[in-house]
Amino acid sequence: GYSQLPRQVHGLAGAPEWPALRGMFPDVAGRRAIDLGCGFGWVSRWLRENGAIQVLGIDLSESMIARARQTTTDSAITYRIADLEMIELPEASFDFAFSSLTFHYISDFDRLTRMIHRSLTPGSHLVFSIEHPIFMAADHPNWIEDEDGRKTWPVNRYAIEGERRTDWFAKDVVKYHRKIGTTLGALIRAGFTIEAVDEFAPSAQQIRDNPALEQELERPMMLLVAARRQE
Amino acid sequence: GYSQLPRQVHGLAGAPEWPALRGMFPDVAGRRAIDLGCGFGWVSRWLRENGAIQVLGIDLSESMIARARQTTTDSAITYRIADLEMIELPEASFDFAFSSLTFHYISDFDRLTRMIHRSLTPGSHLVFSIEHPIFMAADHPNWIEDEDGRKTWPVNRYAIEGERRTDWFAKDVVKYHRKIGTTLGALIRAGFTIEAVDEFAPSAQQIRDNPALEQELERPMMLLVAARRQE
Repeated sequence: GYSQLPRQVHGLAGAPEWPALRGMFPDVAGRRAIDLGCGFGWVSRWLRENGAIQVLGIDLSESMIARARQTTTDSAITYRIADLEMIELPEASFDFAFSSLTFHYISDFDRLTRMIHRSLTPGSHLVFSIEHPIFMAADHPNWIEDEDGRKTWPVNRYAIEGERRTDWFAKDVVKYHRKIGTTLGALIRAGFTIEAVDEFAPSAQQIRDNPALEQELERPMMLLVAARRQE
Repeated sequence: GYSQLPRQVHGLAGAPEWPALRGMFPDVAGRRAIDLGCGFGWVSRWLRENGAIQVLGIDLSESMIARARQTTTDSAITYRIADLEMIELPEASFDFAFSSLTFHYISDFDRLTRMIHRSLTPGSHLVFSIEHPIFMAADHPNWIEDEDGRKTWPVNRYAIEGERRTDWFAKDVVKYHRKIGTTLGALIRAGFTIEAVDEFAPSAQQIRDNPALEQELERPMMLLVAARRQE
């Protein structure tokens, strides 16, 4: 099941996009950080190990939060069960916001970005990853081959935003497809400046270490974004 | 041939993305504008008709510039043959920069964005369209069908940036595939703030008027970007 995924078992070492994502972080030392969709808490703990003075990890899953609590002995990390569709965070109470592969499960991204913006101190960063819309758009998001036998990814319904249902460890998981322009537009309208956009692809070294990653050159699976609340 | 394309014959009315692109413009009244890859000069003339006090249209094609000059009687518009790979514009000499479907022919986009940035006055906008990387990436960028017979666009080699050769009115036209993150990153590094990103899709009204546009809902053909030189 889900908890057997490399990134759940091996944590950050099992997430090939982690070096690229971490490369978008500001220096987190001395910051109060929030980890939105913290899962087992791998990044929450990394943030503390790298100097964050306080970390709040939020997840909808009771079992993940239970496991995160079991794995953590640091009293400066708090885990809480909460739904990002509804949550209200106190104003200007965090100096860094992070989220890994969570926001594409959120229906009202405009509300969420405005709320995150309010919860950050001026000048603070939001860094997050989502499934790339190229990866999510199609009715049948499965590898096909082109006329030369090259691995090829199908795209259709790209401009038709909204629900996508897949069977991924559970039946009928609901995700929300948004164009890149829509995701970036929500951030800009909320008052963020876009600082970096990366469509994760594995490095040559990563492919040598794990040849299964080579197919990630064909189509981007993840979109990484760094944005900053204006001063 | 190329000059028989709807957008060449009918001008802006033949370009379905024009309303979206124009919607990204600042008020151009009183501005000195540059149209990079002006073709027959449709947008150069529109800019003057909408109050720009001076317009410079640049294109590599002698025949297009000749035709643009024939079609223009306004002495405040100047057309010039020049190669965007090489051109140097005087510093802070324009208050608006525009480009339609040209930058994907440019190999050194970093150089070009830095040069445009220098040529703009602080606070001025750059608005442009390019072919969308989803449209350009694959070895064989042609419609296919999915298992339900739905029009589907193939993506492969997305992370492998660089030359793409196609036969489009001429043999072996060279275009340069860049990830969205790379395009936006070049602008940000040059000192631009990203103000809007739009992956053009036709409106319901446009599809009623021209049913052939419906397939543009399946995959984005064009990326539209508005960026602003920081004050």
